Amino acid sequence: MSKLLVFGHQNPDTDAITSAIAYAYLLNQTGMEAEAVALGLPNEETAYALEKFNVNAPRVIETAANETDTVVLVDHNEAQQSVSDIKDVEVYAVVDHHRIANFETANPLYYRAEPVGCTNTILYKMFKEKNIAIPADLAGLMASAIISDSLLFKSPTCTEEDKEAATALAAIAGISLEEYGLTMLKAGTNLGTKTVAELLTLDAKSFPMGDKNVRIAQVNTVDVQDVLSRQAELSAAMEAANQTENYDLFLMVITNIIESDSALLAIGSPLDAVEEAFGVKLVNNTANLPGVVSRKKQVVPPLTDVFTK
Amino acid sequence: MSKLLVFGHQNPDTDAITSAIAYAYLLNQTGMEAEAVALGLPNEETAYALEKFNVNAPRVIETAANETDTVVLVDHNEAQQSVSDIKDVEVYAVVDHHRIANFETANPLYYRAEPVGCTNTILYKMFKEKNIAIPADLAGLMASAIISDSLLFKSPTCTEEDKEAATALAAIAGISLEEYGLTMLKAGTNLGTKTVAELLTLDAKSFPMGDKNVRIAQVNTVDVQDVLSRQAELSAAMEAANQTENYDLFLMVITNIIESDSALLAIGSPLDAVEEAFGVKLVNNTANLPGVVSRKKQVVPPLTDVFTK
Repeated sequence: MSKLLVFGHQNPDTDAITSAIAYAYLLNQTGMEAEAVALGLPNEETAYALEKFNVNAPRVIETAANETDTVVLVDHNEAQQSVSDIKDVEVYAVVDHHRIANFETANPLYYRAEPVGCTNTILYKMFKEKNIAIPADLAGLMASAIISDSLLFKSPTCTEEDKEAATALAAIAGISLEEYGLTMLKAGTNLGTKTVAELLTLDAKSFPMGDKNVRIAQVNTVDVQDVLSRQAELSAAMEAANQTENYDLFLMVITNIIESDSALLAIGSPLDAVEEAFGVKLVNNTANLPGVVSRKKQVVPPLTDVFTK
Repeated sequence: MSKLLVFGHQNPDTDAITSAIAYAYLLNQTGMEAEAVALGLPNEETAYALEKFNVNAPRVIETAANETDTVVLVDHNEAQQSVSDIKDVEVYAVVDHHRIANFETANPLYYRAEPVGCTNTILYKMFKEKNIAIPADLAGLMASAIISDSLLFKSPTCTEEDKEAATALAAIAGISLEEYGLTMLKAGTNLGTKTVAELLTLDAKSFPMGDKNVRIAQVNTVDVQDVLSRQAELSAAMEAANQTENYDLFLMVITNIIESDSALLAIGSPLDAVEEAFGVKLVNNTANLPGVVSRKKQVVPPLTDVFTK
């Protein structure tokens, strides 16, 4: 077996980048040769965390088989989210907190999944189980990932285990979760420099619902009005995307990470289904969604219910 | 969530039966409502272990969705080895030591796999991690599974962790691994009373390989020739099964647990792929496989390589 390359999913977020760093460290401590790499550059939030804890960004790889025959996946397992030549290498281990799909191996492997809010929460447990100390800087990165995935524990995906892990990691790192966490999350909300096209693709996914094709983009911010000041431009781009990409409905969820709620901008049809799903009245194509921060748990399910009933 | 049903694979062996019992016990100790069940009756080896440690055989289920919406898989994950209506229930957790294939969930779950020789070795670690004591009778069953899967540590699937776990479990159970182990293994080699149909289903699994459907049965014995004396009858039954069950290829692996090697009987096609996989020449559809005792490590991988190259 050649050196293990450890990496998270494409378009990496803070958990994808830092869980690769943390697991590579853990593997090294148990005598394995492992290197953390990434399938893309860090976003602004992740770059802030890496700089804060003096850790270099993992180098970016396009393919794996040209340098190893064995890889380790973190924060994902589905082939379409992984390295392009995943079929040409053997998966030695996976640590993940997502559903399992489109994943198959020829041989037995290490697979550790738990339905918690963050991959680093599982890794924290693995360090404890193996009695391996976590260096302060690494603990800071791992806490950053839990803050990121849970929006400082406010997301409904967050579990008690995530909170316990983040609290323990913050103590090792010597940081205040609230103070550092909010600063880090804000570093990822620097949307002023982004084009409208970037805002709509930064974190966007398509969902077939009944016979409709629904596109849902989400951005995190500390100033919803700042984003909505570009509503005319955003609406025009969403309208255009509906035409060219055959979306029936394009929703933009603008999440205020301080207030833990979101503004919704809805373009396309049927808009009355949107109103029914969230129990709101759209005014000028917008509505407030109090308490909504999770696309996975709070946006997709009520919409799916309305479109498939 | 209704009560968790915990079960191993079809045609259960000692690990499939006892890992369900062990994991259901562990889940109960952590406050979950869980019941160990089975997808078939215990074989003679397992029956010997259950009687030795005064534990009742789990009740046999045909389907799961009629009594629960949530299940736990042990010692397997592939849908074709699982309960017939696996698609109609949600998988809450998996503990396994096999490759992952033909397995997909809609939601995040607990998944714990390690490339060790026995599911009960992983469960032993989970008991330790959660600081839950293992009762003596349960420890005896768990040690029995490791003895069974590792053929008393002679199988290449056996790892240091399996030996450590078995040694610790034997101490809790108050048994001698060598003495009890050999008696238990021999209890499972009483093949003279078995019909040909029974020999072919005692421990048989299906494996999709490339575009072929391969069935592989394995029996343990202390007298390979005694089994091969029924070759004509076995071949006819395998031929018939290929027709009715749509297997392309049916392999029977007859393993001598004292000598630690196997005889192979291959029926169906392509037989040249079998010869290529094992580097042997089939004579009258049979070949010796020196040193081969593990279907998982020494039979499935070389065959898969040939069928998927």
